[in-house]
Amino acid sequence: MRTTEPLKFLTPAEVPVLATAFGTPTFIYDLTSLEARYRYFATIPNAFGLTIRYSVKANPNRTILRVFDRFGAHFDVSSVWEARRVIAAGIPASKILMTAQEVSLGWEGLCRQGMQYDAGSISQLKAFGIAFPGADVSLRINPGFGSGLVRKLTSGGSHSSFGLWIDQADEAIELAKRFGLTIGRLHFHIGSGHESTVLEQTVDVALQLCARIPSVQILNLGGGYRIAALQSDPQYDHHAMGERIAARLRDFARAHGRELKLELEPGTALASLAGSLVTRVIDKVDTGAQGYRFLKIDGGLTELMRPSYYGALHPLVTVQADGTLPTESEEVMVSGHCCIAGDSLTPKPGNAEDIQAQPLGMVVPGDFLVVERTGGYAASMSVKNFNSYPEAAEVLRSAHGQYTLIRSRQTFEQMTENEIDATL
Amino acid sequence: MRTTEPLKFLTPAEVPVLATAFGTPTFIYDLTSLEARYRYFATIPNAFGLTIRYSVKANPNRTILRVFDRFGAHFDVSSVWEARRVIAAGIPASKILMTAQEVSLGWEGLCRQGMQYDAGSISQLKAFGIAFPGADVSLRINPGFGSGLVRKLTSGGSHSSFGLWIDQADEAIELAKRFGLTIGRLHFHIGSGHESTVLEQTVDVALQLCARIPSVQILNLGGGYRIAALQSDPQYDHHAMGERIAARLRDFARAHGRELKLELEPGTALASLAGSLVTRVIDKVDTGAQGYRFLKIDGGLTELMRPSYYGALHPLVTVQADGTLPTESEEVMVSGHCCIAGDSLTPKPGNAEDIQAQPLGMVVPGDFLVVERTGGYAASMSVKNFNSYPEAAEVLRSAHGQYTLIRSRQTFEQMTENEIDATL
Repeated sequence: MRTTEPLKFLTPAEVPVLATAFGTPTFIYDLTSLEARYRYFATIPNAFGLTIRYSVKANPNRTILRVFDRFGAHFDVSSVWEARRVIAAGIPASKILMTAQEVSLGWEGLCRQGMQYDAGSISQLKAFGIAFPGADVSLRINPGFGSGLVRKLTSGGSHSSFGLWIDQADEAIELAKRFGLTIGRLHFHIGSGHESTVLEQTVDVALQLCARIPSVQILNLGGGYRIAALQSDPQYDHHAMGERIAARLRDFARAHGRELKLELEPGTALASLAGSLVTRVIDKVDTGAQGYRFLKIDGGLTELMRPSYYGALHPLVTVQADGTLPTESEEVMVSGHCCIAGDSLTPKPGNAEDIQAQPLGMVVPGDFLVVERTGGYAASMSVKNFNSYPEAAEVLRSAHGQYTLIRSRQTFEQMTENEIDATL
Repeated sequence: MRTTEPLKFLTPAEVPVLATAFGTPTFIYDLTSLEARYRYFATIPNAFGLTIRYSVKANPNRTILRVFDRFGAHFDVSSVWEARRVIAAGIPASKILMTAQEVSLGWEGLCRQGMQYDAGSISQLKAFGIAFPGADVSLRINPGFGSGLVRKLTSGGSHSSFGLWIDQADEAIELAKRFGLTIGRLHFHIGSGHESTVLEQTVDVALQLCARIPSVQILNLGGGYRIAALQSDPQYDHHAMGERIAARLRDFARAHGRELKLELEPGTALASLAGSLVTRVIDKVDTGAQGYRFLKIDGGLTELMRPSYYGALHPLVTVQADGTLPTESEEVMVSGHCCIAGDSLTPKPGNAEDIQAQPLGMVVPGDFLVVERTGGYAASMSVKNFNSYPEAAEVLRSAHGQYTLIRSRQTFEQMTENEIDATL
């Protein structure tokens, strides 16, 4: 018999309080959980030093960036725009490493401010060499294989356009030499939700390449670390993974006399479990005795696309309007508020093409549904403004249980302010 | 041998002109194509009158709404927010029919202004009856089956939470009677990209129900009409479909003495082929002799999620920097600029889990790639601001070939303006 999921950090009594204060849907981020997640990753056993680069794309809110900065994190950005967010948060550009598919307007200025540059293609390396001859550079390498929760999250192997194909390493080394560049870091990111055994194979490939490039001092293994979100999820031991990687780095140091520093770029692993989306149940319908029962909520694809995009089932917790948990449960589907059948929060796990009822505490319209695991890749990666729904609010919960609005709800005027009437 | 796709309405020479004037990525909408599409639908053969309701969620830009209003369209909205957009465009509320999963704040005021209300559940019908006893109302019915391009687009059947389940019709009729409501319209929307044979079966179910509700004057069949976007797509004859539906309505009139008016709610079918997304090729990489060649562009999921979300292959046309078409072609994958492997514009058609190279004219970075079929469900349904990329610009091309900016590109300041620093 399947059981309902528990709340991650909120108490049931807080849910109506938050809904009244900030409206729904609203993201709540928990400072204590963010810190605990950061500490867990920052203390991963390592051989010769470890830098945690928070992956900004997971959640780029300025306060979240300042929180991770205060913890001591460095930053991984995927675009010049994310770099600008980090700098706007008052963080030195030197703490940023940019690994981007698109190197757009203003990247040279960001590099001049101190942002580090990770070349993911021959042309990116060439552009950097022309602009900054003699500088330090990183190379992002596609090791020829990858691993991820689904194909959409697998960024290594011949189907992936990310990074220099491993066979192009010689060409890249030659090109770096031509511009007097020092390759100080090799970067690998094989996918999100990867198998750690495949990450360890990646380390083996990486170290073979490190051996051939004596200037390399840093090995960056990217992000994509699995987390236990549902009660049924296995616990992943990233500290044990750290031990196994550290052993390889020590072997490398013995063989080559070089102590490589390790960098990891968690996003999901730092932010996701520290966020909850508070929504209101707005309807309850069914499709007959042979059909299903559905809860409809006042959020959906506009706040979270992971369930519909790649079949990720998030923990869903219902809370009654009076701030208590329901005593009985029932199997229901959950539909978001968008006018597309794909707006379901109850995918068949791992299969976005189908849906499957889940056991939830029995509620009625006016009660609440909390979508857990929404601190990362939720507000930052959603079908924003679909059906013209405004961007949701974001709130930080302090260690003392105080709430601070860190992004106000978008207004209708803001959503449409860039429109200009044409003469017809 | 597969051939490359042609441009839909742009000339190759216009592409660099538009990119210089408005930057990339930019959506271009063509007034002539919009009008042609509207005329085609407005002239579908019908028995006793036809109203075309443009489905606002396809593309809610204020100028696009004004364009359809000028043509004579009425409007289908999926949220109170879309209704506000229509009214902000200067269009009378009485031309709006709202069919929404979420009936949110301010809906009563919109109804008082004249917006028509389509109840999609018992609780929606009840809320309307309480607020507007004695008024006219529509019922959205789930006929018990549906049809769509994929499950995510199929909004009929027991897996769908849209509409009153057909078996609840009696309960709805009773409830309407209790509040003195007149059921003037029945509404069905079985899915997007549906088979027209299934739509015709829907008409049969609909007419059985119409026979039982003497007050019904209007049959609304929703949207989701297929279009030929790729050269390999079949041509769909919506006029022939109209004839077959008209025959059924004439039969019904003969049997029941009631001449039902028809309403259709096309969105894709009116807007999609009238829009092109101009992007720039920013990189070209490969994954070795056994691998693939990839073009990378400066747009992607942030402007268009359909390829990655449900495997929709859009026509892709490359144009050289000098405004000419390439003379040679090659098989390539196309990657968007986002840092997620899922940001591919070359899905295996109908299978978002895999990708497949397509024949495109041979280009190099600095050249252009035009994504066709992006007038609908592109700017309005995208992973906006992912990786912090700003919302793209939108431009209308007049019948005389003049360009008017109808939405300016979002700035960094706008993207982050609602953030509030918390005291840490």
